[in-house]
Amino acid sequence: MKENFPSRALGDAVEAIASLPGVGSRSALRLALHLLRQPSENISRFAEALGRLATDVHYCKTCHMVCDGDQCPICADARRDSRTICVVESVRDVLSIEATGQYRGVYHVLGGIISPMEGIGPSDLEIASLEERVKALGSCEVIFALSGDVEGETTAFYLYRRITGEGVKITTLARGLGFGDGLEYADSLTLGRSLEARQPFKP
Amino acid sequence: MKENFPSRALGDAVEAIASLPGVGSRSALRLALHLLRQPSENISRFAEALGRLATDVHYCKTCHMVCDGDQCPICADARRDSRTICVVESVRDVLSIEATGQYRGVYHVLGGIISPMEGIGPSDLEIASLEERVKALGSCEVIFALSGDVEGETTAFYLYRRITGEGVKITTLARGLGFGDGLEYADSLTLGRSLEARQPFKP
Repeated sequence: MKENFPSRALGDAVEAIASLPGVGSRSALRLALHLLRQPSENISRFAEALGRLATDVHYCKTCHMVCDGDQCPICADARRDSRTICVVESVRDVLSIEATGQYRGVYHVLGGIISPMEGIGPSDLEIASLEERVKALGSCEVIFALSGDVEGETTAFYLYRRITGEGVKITTLARGLGFGDGLEYADSLTLGRSLEARQPFKP
Repeated sequence: MKENFPSRALGDAVEAIASLPGVGSRSALRLALHLLRQPSENISRFAEALGRLATDVHYCKTCHMVCDGDQCPICADARRDSRTICVVESVRDVLSIEATGQYRGVYHVLGGIISPMEGIGPSDLEIASLEERVKALGSCEVIFALSGDVEGETTAFYLYRRITGEGVKITTLARGLGFGDGLEYADSLTLGRSLEARQPFKP
């Protein structure tokens, strides 16, 4: 497609945008032409904002969340319970859980999930640093907030073996029917598991 | 949303991406995190490719198509018929028509369409330069390849009055049922117009 563009800069921009996941070449052209219609200082500001992803994003030394310095605001917040560590796959999961406004502990971002299919093993993830954190704390709770698929369960099982020990309470997110969901919309796996994991009724 | 990000650079990038048309804040976050996972030289290359839209895209002095210098490859191509000018709204339309491989004339990119609703008048578009081109050529064909909505028809009518004259043949794209389309899929306006504009059958 690139050689059809009479402007190499436009062709390069379209090719760059089309390299993003879920963006096809037609959308990429639409977005590039949208940018091109903006005043040039807006285009430069846009490009600089993206460029700073390469230079200005740091990772928290404790939990590996993105942040502006050595420590993220969550780990730095003395009001958060540093003895409750929620283990997640990615930065996005931290943002999702923070958006609930319900969690007062801290996080540990693995940076991925164990996936032999994609060649991602335990050493590619922030697992050793989790083990050290847990050991240093001695008594703590570790919450596995991982996805419910095979990779998530494999990772949870592997983590369990690495961090289990005296004083370490390990929990995982509740799974079941969505709150407010009717039975007719649930898939049979979720419904079956929800039945199996039934809870005492609290009137 | 921005203040929720523990990294200002990430927040800025998400905000920039979400400013694109048709990209919501969730998609913007997904794309920003995708970029963030790339090696930093790839991120920089990506940002530079977009930044060059502000500096390296030029416009053809004749037809106002994007290009790398003063003249676009289409206007510079001596094999193209410079006496047939296809008038289009945008760069994208030129790419669409070029993709058909059927057109051997040249173009004139208006840079928009007359739209009183959006405050776009004739002086905001490349209409004076079209008038000059047509006058300089004397005898030529001008093809209106504009959209079939009210703005497109208004613009065509206005252009007609500005450029009509001795030796100037003015045509417009054929409209009707899509080639290969069945009658049951056509909207009634298209079907009615196609009936009205019926053509001699060529067996």
